[in-house]
Amino acid sequence: MAEKVTIATVARHAQVSRQTVSNVLNSPHIVREETRQRVQEAIVALGYRANQAARQMRTGRSRLIAVRIEPTRDGINGSVLDRFLHGLTETAEAAGYRTMLYTATDPQREIATYDDLLGSYDLDGFVLTGTDHGDPRTAWLAARGVPFVTFGRPWDDLDAHCWVDVDGAAGTAAATAHLLAAGHRRIGWIGWPAGSGVGDDRRAGWHRTLRAAGVDPAGLERETADGIAEGERHARDLLADPTPPTALICASDSLALGALQAARTTGPAIPVIGFDDTPVAAAIGLTSVGQPLGDAAARCVDLLTAVLDEPRRALSPVLLQPELVLRHTA
Amino acid sequence: MAEKVTIATVARHAQVSRQTVSNVLNSPHIVREETRQRVQEAIVALGYRANQAARQMRTGRSRLIAVRIEPTRDGINGSVLDRFLHGLTETAEAAGYRTMLYTATDPQREIATYDDLLGSYDLDGFVLTGTDHGDPRTAWLAARGVPFVTFGRPWDDLDAHCWVDVDGAAGTAAATAHLLAAGHRRIGWIGWPAGSGVGDDRRAGWHRTLRAAGVDPAGLERETADGIAEGERHARDLLADPTPPTALICASDSLALGALQAARTTGPAIPVIGFDDTPVAAAIGLTSVGQPLGDAAARCVDLLTAVLDEPRRALSPVLLQPELVLRHTA
Repeated sequence: MAEKVTIATVARHAQVSRQTVSNVLNSPHIVREETRQRVQEAIVALGYRANQAARQMRTGRSRLIAVRIEPTRDGINGSVLDRFLHGLTETAEAAGYRTMLYTATDPQREIATYDDLLGSYDLDGFVLTGTDHGDPRTAWLAARGVPFVTFGRPWDDLDAHCWVDVDGAAGTAAATAHLLAAGHRRIGWIGWPAGSGVGDDRRAGWHRTLRAAGVDPAGLERETADGIAEGERHARDLLADPTPPTALICASDSLALGALQAARTTGPAIPVIGFDDTPVAAAIGLTSVGQPLGDAAARCVDLLTAVLDEPRRALSPVLLQPELVLRHTA
Repeated sequence: MAEKVTIATVARHAQVSRQTVSNVLNSPHIVREETRQRVQEAIVALGYRANQAARQMRTGRSRLIAVRIEPTRDGINGSVLDRFLHGLTETAEAAGYRTMLYTATDPQREIATYDDLLGSYDLDGFVLTGTDHGDPRTAWLAARGVPFVTFGRPWDDLDAHCWVDVDGAAGTAAATAHLLAAGHRRIGWIGWPAGSGVGDDRRAGWHRTLRAAGVDPAGLERETADGIAEGERHARDLLADPTPPTALICASDSLALGALQAARTTGPAIPVIGFDDTPVAAAIGLTSVGQPLGDAAARCVDLLTAVLDEPRRALSPVLLQPELVLRHTA
């Protein structure tokens, strides 16, 4: 390998002091524009790369953030967080941060992992996914002053910390409005058991839009765990009603895929709308509510880097709008 | 936070010297079994976690490996490397290693990223994906003595370095044999342009199995870039032949999905088999060749940790067998 390029090499090349080079790297705003440009040109010309350990000693930053990777599930809903992870890695990299992965099967194990990671790797911060009521993870990090941002709202107190989320209720409201506009009144809902932040939010958009249109939602909904078989079973159950729904909206594409199979085999095909616009939805022509996952990841990186740059700065949370992606099934 | 537990604390608690604790952590085989157990119990009782920086100074290890994350593509074929990544993170974690992600759009940029990562984070090694002929990445790493393992063969010289791969030709051979057994003779192939290691390997299994059955493959194949629309177009083209194929095998599930649409709309439905057993294949009932991705990831971690433990040890490459997953389409 060629001789190592150091701050001293850059300083000689740009005819400035080593302190000035250090300032350009760590506090560029205090350096005169002309000087900053000369140093930047020397850095590029020489191919200088700050040694991370040395930079960390100067700045206290490791330029490393961590995010959880989920266990592989049915490959349908799991693809959502995979897409988020791709976006996060790309935008973090563009902002000068690398992404480290960890796994955790429940919040307590995840907290134990934070402790381990913080002790072992001097991370700058975390991006948390899958928030829910009474989330112990955020309280743990906040108590220790560890910078973090969540993809998902703090459902108990929206001002608790910095977050990015997608307005699920707006998505199901748009789906319901689309079916109402097509003349449907008895629009069914297949969702998750009450009590989860995300699940209740998605249900709320359907519920309030039906109500606003003067339709009583009673008897039109089923609660179930997620899955294709579950969606099929509960759709069959709803469609067996003497006055069955004439269209179905589901809390996930997995449920919708099952509902679609039920709707195709129990009688005349009825419209079905899923949630998350997964690759499976695209492949089979399922109308679905899509989350702007790349944008959500980018906004998480924006907020986290802003917190790292100015720990005391007040930052507004970000609520992104989903999009109803119309295909063959509705 | 509670007072930090150090090697000295563990040594006092276990009534051994600090050097002995260090030996238990770094060279346990040189410590007497009874002593090793006492130190291990003290480590557990005190909740000792080696500070990474300190451990790294002692062992020269960061316990950090890096792997590339691909750009999100159509969400069908991309899911394959996502599943590999999940498996890799889980098995690396179980072996005491964390996984860092990076992105790179071509081999030269990937090499520049290796240089950056090695300078910045003192990684222990890399897991490379997507090998091809004349891969400059492995030569770069080997020349610098950086430990790595590839998921994918070194196509030009199978002894060039440590690798794990799946026998794609065996998978398409099984698919072809399955269709031959069902009475088909004119079995078509839709694959990628000649010249890629993976693509040529998948085609070879179809080609040799047809030949062995006395069928001339001439005129039965099409080469194309990957994608649903491409699969549909080339399947239509093959099926428009005066003596069209009576069944189709494709190099990917994306191509197969398109071929299926063509086969359903141009005449009587014919069998179609894809490759990679993606979630989309499962959702639509597509028969497909599945790779044991979790196993492949685990074997990559095994090989890399073996190289890190004993740099001079000769390790055998691992060629895993795929599985033909039979569903509705063949």
